[in-house]
Amino acid sequence: MDQHQLIDTIRSKASFLCVGLDPDPARIPAHLGTGPQAALRFNLGIIEATSDLAVAYKPNVAFYEAMGAEGWGVLQATMDAIPSGCLRIADAKRGDIGNTATRYAEAAFRQWKADAVTVAPYMGRDSVEPFLAFEDKWTILLAATSNPGAEDFEFHGAEGGQPLWRRVMEVSRGYEGAERLMYVVGATRPELLAECRAAAPDRFLLVPGVGAQGGSLEEVCAAGWAPKLAGGLLVNVGRSVLYASEGSDFAEAARLEAKTIQASMAAVLDLNR
Amino acid sequence: MDQHQLIDTIRSKASFLCVGLDPDPARIPAHLGTGPQAALRFNLGIIEATSDLAVAYKPNVAFYEAMGAEGWGVLQATMDAIPSGCLRIADAKRGDIGNTATRYAEAAFRQWKADAVTVAPYMGRDSVEPFLAFEDKWTILLAATSNPGAEDFEFHGAEGGQPLWRRVMEVSRGYEGAERLMYVVGATRPELLAECRAAAPDRFLLVPGVGAQGGSLEEVCAAGWAPKLAGGLLVNVGRSVLYASEGSDFAEAARLEAKTIQASMAAVLDLNR
Repeated sequence: MDQHQLIDTIRSKASFLCVGLDPDPARIPAHLGTGPQAALRFNLGIIEATSDLAVAYKPNVAFYEAMGAEGWGVLQATMDAIPSGCLRIADAKRGDIGNTATRYAEAAFRQWKADAVTVAPYMGRDSVEPFLAFEDKWTILLAATSNPGAEDFEFHGAEGGQPLWRRVMEVSRGYEGAERLMYVVGATRPELLAECRAAAPDRFLLVPGVGAQGGSLEEVCAAGWAPKLAGGLLVNVGRSVLYASEGSDFAEAARLEAKTIQASMAAVLDLNR
Repeated sequence: MDQHQLIDTIRSKASFLCVGLDPDPARIPAHLGTGPQAALRFNLGIIEATSDLAVAYKPNVAFYEAMGAEGWGVLQATMDAIPSGCLRIADAKRGDIGNTATRYAEAAFRQWKADAVTVAPYMGRDSVEPFLAFEDKWTILLAATSNPGAEDFEFHGAEGGQPLWRRVMEVSRGYEGAERLMYVVGATRPELLAECRAAAPDRFLLVPGVGAQGGSLEEVCAAGWAPKLAGGLLVNVGRSVLYASEGSDFAEAARLEAKTIQASMAAVLDLNR
């Protein structure tokens, strides 16, 4: 899915909702059973109930790795179940160099059939460009996150110049294939999101942290809106959709919650038409 | 394996060799066949031929992920084949926060049964401490690597204070469980390795880049030696051991190469007794 197709999808669905698929074994409704296959049934129920409301799904790879060998199959079956009109984001935060990075990219783009993968920037150019070399795919680079630990390194360097997150956004613009970059920016600090938008006016931002983690959709849109990109935002919501109900009505409850969020997104898109 | 046991192992084997298990499908000897099971046969041959000469093995997880679902089984069978007297390092460079990080740690330590895992520091404390919470395990944090892209971010911030890699080493010393940290430091810049040793005099350093990548064992030891830790170095060698021969004598050739390296290590240990 290229940028034009993504913008068209956002406009036609009146949504920029990304649903995070992080199936927590402790919170999967009891009637689905237990173990990796229960997680798969849960994911399939969530996807079926929300696929007209979401433009992207984001399985968090850690949840599948922790299931053991069977988790790999659950991840692949989950990716397969995501309709082709939605962006499939492997949230893997990989980061290694050269031919190792190429192998991580092959796992994400060829094995899991993801359209996009999240990548950590620490090792620099030769850890990012092997992902960007896949011409029909997206690389979503960690920039400014909103976890407490972000202060440790992401904000380092500001005394003498710019914080690390800003250098990541600036330097990565020069990478080969940079037109296939997006950035991860946390939702809970709107002023930071505005700075990120200024640093990358022409790129999509993947914004986790809305909902259960405390970010506000209205503040995110006010701070991060890029008019030429139909907003240029993919707002990820995880727990508040997944666990809207932990009973046998989990899918209907997830749909209701997703519908509420999508309606808010439609209103923002309408205002900014 | 705790620090005392690791030091004892280094002394008794007269070696601080870590063998990188990065099976490249294009370089596996033809008589082993093709596909994931050929990679496993290759790994088993390498391990059997070198396990008295090495103190650690480091499977690079990307190589197994790129094989698809079967790769997971190959990684587990490889880990299982590493004798318990050797440190099993999952080179995964994971980096995510909170309960996601815990799941990556569970995958590495519980599913793959690794003794140690490499971790990327970008997201800070809450992306590292979930690994450190595993009391009988090691977390090996990326610090100063020697790939060209390291200039992009690892060396950022030096004008106004310290480079990022040094901040990573300083700040992480304050993390809960920091006594279970090691650091990844590249071999090809001895002066940088000396700075890293000064920043972490009491920690083991995992040093890739010796051999095919151009680092010299003698320079690494001169720059990075920590006398109280029997050197405090795990020197990783990959391709020059794995592909010493690409014929049916690959295991014998790997042993000869590993033996040459181990003999050099024994001499350094003897000199520094």
